[in-house]
Amino acid sequence: MGSKIVRIIGIDPGLRRTGWGVVESDGVRLGYVASGLIKASTDTDLAYRLRELFEGIASVIASFKPQEAAVEETFVNDNARSTLKLGQARGMALLAPAMGGLVVAEYSPNLIKKTVTGTGHADKKQIEAMIGFLLPRARVESADEADALAIAICHANHRQARVRLALATAGGR
Amino acid sequence: MGSKIVRIIGIDPGLRRTGWGVVESDGVRLGYVASGLIKASTDTDLAYRLRELFEGIASVIASFKPQEAAVEETFVNDNARSTLKLGQARGMALLAPAMGGLVVAEYSPNLIKKTVTGTGHADKKQIEAMIGFLLPRARVESADEADALAIAICHANHRQARVRLALATAGGR
Repeated sequence: MGSKIVRIIGIDPGLRRTGWGVVESDGVRLGYVASGLIKASTDTDLAYRLRELFEGIASVIASFKPQEAAVEETFVNDNARSTLKLGQARGMALLAPAMGGLVVAEYSPNLIKKTVTGTGHADKKQIEAMIGFLLPRARVESADEADALAIAICHANHRQARVRLALATAGGR
Repeated sequence: MGSKIVRIIGIDPGLRRTGWGVVESDGVRLGYVASGLIKASTDTDLAYRLRELFEGIASVIASFKPQEAAVEETFVNDNARSTLKLGQARGMALLAPAMGGLVVAEYSPNLIKKTVTGTGHADKKQIEAMIGFLLPRARVESADEADALAIAICHANHRQARVRLALATAGGR
């Protein structure tokens, strides 16, 4: 226990740009596997943009075969229209791993920042700097990728408690 | 033209209860095919509830084989948390028909009410009464089913203009 390697995908969903990052963790050490950005076309109907996003995430999962997924619990309060859009994109980020049978965990932005940088109020630059430090082999080309890797790292740090809880509520098997 | 029968599914999405209704239209007459309610379990993780909802809608589409789908364009302004939830459910209602290659149209609540009852400010009872009048064979057991049928009827009335536009923007084929 604790030495088994688990592969985790972190997803930072957005209708235009969805960042993803895959890491491996044995409970102590952390390794970078891959990361990238899924860009949806802007000239299609919403339903088909969501399909592109869903298929993009599903194909990343099929390629890198993570066992667990983590998605940020986001709340934007600026306006209902953009919150609804984010909800639709976020639905794809939750559905794609669920269709693959993965464990899907959600974390608040504050916990993600706190886990990775030590403070809940870190900005994007601090997160990118810590990703470079924690995953020296990572080739991160965008803030969305860095955020996705931060979400995956957050799950690597908190997963044992969560997975135990999930097993307990499923009947202790 | 105009006499070809098209089968339309209307979807009224919600995380707990999603109404659906299938109608047939030849451009003049309207016929009831089927309607129902998809209830997601409340004791599972969000990602797996979304999966249930997605698979529920996909299986209705596989059973009744509509060629076109219509979904309400909803905006709730009460709070960001419920708007985000609605967005996630709505994502499933858009994705499921897009995965089946259907035309997916969106209509505002006002246009749906106006098309079905003649006024944009109709209440649920007026909508249910008009559904009974327009689709006498319908067996409607919930307001969500009635709303879904109203969405399908709205598309039956406005689809020709929308489909022509979609074909024109796709290159006129």
